[in-house]
Amino acid sequence: MSIDLLQKQIIEKKNPTVLGLDPRPEYIPPHILSAHIAEKGETLQAAADAYYTFNCGLIDALADIIPAVKPQSAYYELLGHAGVEALQKTVAYAKSKGLYVIVDGKRNDIGSTAAAYSDAYLGRVTIGDTTFAPFDADSLTVNAYLGSDGIDPFIETCKKFDKSVFALVKTSNPSGGQLQDLLCGDRNLYTAVGDLMARIALDTVGEYGYSCVGIVVGATYPTDARTLRKRLKNSFFLVPGYGAQGGGAADVAPCFDEYGHGAIVNSARAILCAWKQSEAGDGSDYQSAARAEALRMRADIADVVTVL
Amino acid sequence: MSIDLLQKQIIEKKNPTVLGLDPRPEYIPPHILSAHIAEKGETLQAAADAYYTFNCGLIDALADIIPAVKPQSAYYELLGHAGVEALQKTVAYAKSKGLYVIVDGKRNDIGSTAAAYSDAYLGRVTIGDTTFAPFDADSLTVNAYLGSDGIDPFIETCKKFDKSVFALVKTSNPSGGQLQDLLCGDRNLYTAVGDLMARIALDTVGEYGYSCVGIVVGATYPTDARTLRKRLKNSFFLVPGYGAQGGGAADVAPCFDEYGHGAIVNSARAILCAWKQSEAGDGSDYQSAARAEALRMRADIADVVTVL
Repeated sequence: MSIDLLQKQIIEKKNPTVLGLDPRPEYIPPHILSAHIAEKGETLQAAADAYYTFNCGLIDALADIIPAVKPQSAYYELLGHAGVEALQKTVAYAKSKGLYVIVDGKRNDIGSTAAAYSDAYLGRVTIGDTTFAPFDADSLTVNAYLGSDGIDPFIETCKKFDKSVFALVKTSNPSGGQLQDLLCGDRNLYTAVGDLMARIALDTVGEYGYSCVGIVVGATYPTDARTLRKRLKNSFFLVPGYGAQGGGAADVAPCFDEYGHGAIVNSARAILCAWKQSEAGDGSDYQSAARAEALRMRADIADVVTVL
Repeated sequence: MSIDLLQKQIIEKKNPTVLGLDPRPEYIPPHILSAHIAEKGETLQAAADAYYTFNCGLIDALADIIPAVKPQSAYYELLGHAGVEALQKTVAYAKSKGLYVIVDGKRNDIGSTAAAYSDAYLGRVTIGDTTFAPFDADSLTVNAYLGSDGIDPFIETCKKFDKSVFALVKTSNPSGGQLQDLLCGDRNLYTAVGDLMARIALDTVGEYGYSCVGIVVGATYPTDARTLRKRLKNSFFLVPGYGAQGGGAADVAPCFDEYGHGAIVNSARAILCAWKQSEAGDGSDYQSAARAEALRMRADIADVVTVL
């Protein structure tokens, strides 16, 4: 199963972290953005091409030490279809460098519409007699509010093409608890969502004990993460909230199992914008600055989690 | 406020229905699809261009009788960036014909990422000194699982650019109740979501009594819709599930207030595919077939709801 592919990558690189590729104009080293604007004007296309150049540079600098990347779809959609093309190209480039690619789109719908999302990001579409894999990511984040009707089509695609999804369970933001912490009988809502996601994917558990439906569990609520880790033994955790949102290495430790498996921690801004704190300060050393920060993060997490 | 714009359109046309623009290759009249394939081959671009041609034809045929269209983003994303460009062009064309455009994307995220979605679909983005409105829809569907952090950025954009959103509350699918019907204290989860959406948007209530945060309430649960209509007096309802999913006119009636305001009912497949049941049967009369079905639906709903 596809989550096995991710776990293998993590074990090989002894690094349970994922690079969030969340570009914004102000994160791009000025020389990259201005070169594209000089050529194409102040256009969405110029910004999209600058994102892709930046992403490729980061991937080149980090592909030997990180197992995965997670582009956040919102930032690409913000540039319209040019941005979506940059997302498609980024997925392809990251995969060509051996990285596991999780598109963070939090998609959700029912029946045939959920199947369209699933086919778009993880599967195939056929026009006439010709078949395409439009995004061909390894994984997609999803939102489970619509129940199993909304997730089952993704599981079908995961089985067919060896892919995975991560469903939102306990998010890292301050207001996440307004709904997620509501007590429904003897469980919080987020526990009910986690239980449902675990149950519907049980028949996809792979070599390392994890199913194709992972869950998103924020680093900012370590006590809840510890409880979920014990309860949902077959659910792989995608963990946002490390760094910028306040979570530290000690906070993410409860997300891992006794082998240091079963979780991957996201970092975006600290790595993308490392060049702003570096000696040059002008972005000319963005690759080495990103690498230094990624190595620091790996070491920080290695202090509390040993990947066996 | 923007929901007023929608209500005004509905009153003018005496028609509280929205055309779901949910294209798939098999919904497109063969002569349209084959013309684009003849020119561009069996490509995602050919399919995307066929979607746009089909959408424009439907909009031309219906713009004088329907107030709004709702393109479902999943079907466009399934064609990659070419499909997303067709979505952008469809939004622009529908607006040029005076229609209110609701992009059905069910987007959700937190903080600055939610803001990126909001800017993309309803707001603006600036590259250098140049500002763009990438999608420029009137409204976007959203998912509230992340709490108010995930909705507030949309409300800001709604206030700034006179737009609206519709948050999922009670969806029309069979498994919707797995989570949405869970009892949280003295309320179902979907009621808690509805209450939260009503509360955070109270200061945006407009002329007709509705805020900029509408809610999605499926036609398949009329008893729940009646309860929600009484409880959430300031929430405009977007109602899927009529027709193909089993909801009839009597089922959608409880979604409206005493003036026949406050709700809009979606129909997609029955109108898009009306040509398959028509005399010609080859799609050559897809516009008149769609118009006949749209008029039938308007009359069907007028039997139980009078828009004052």
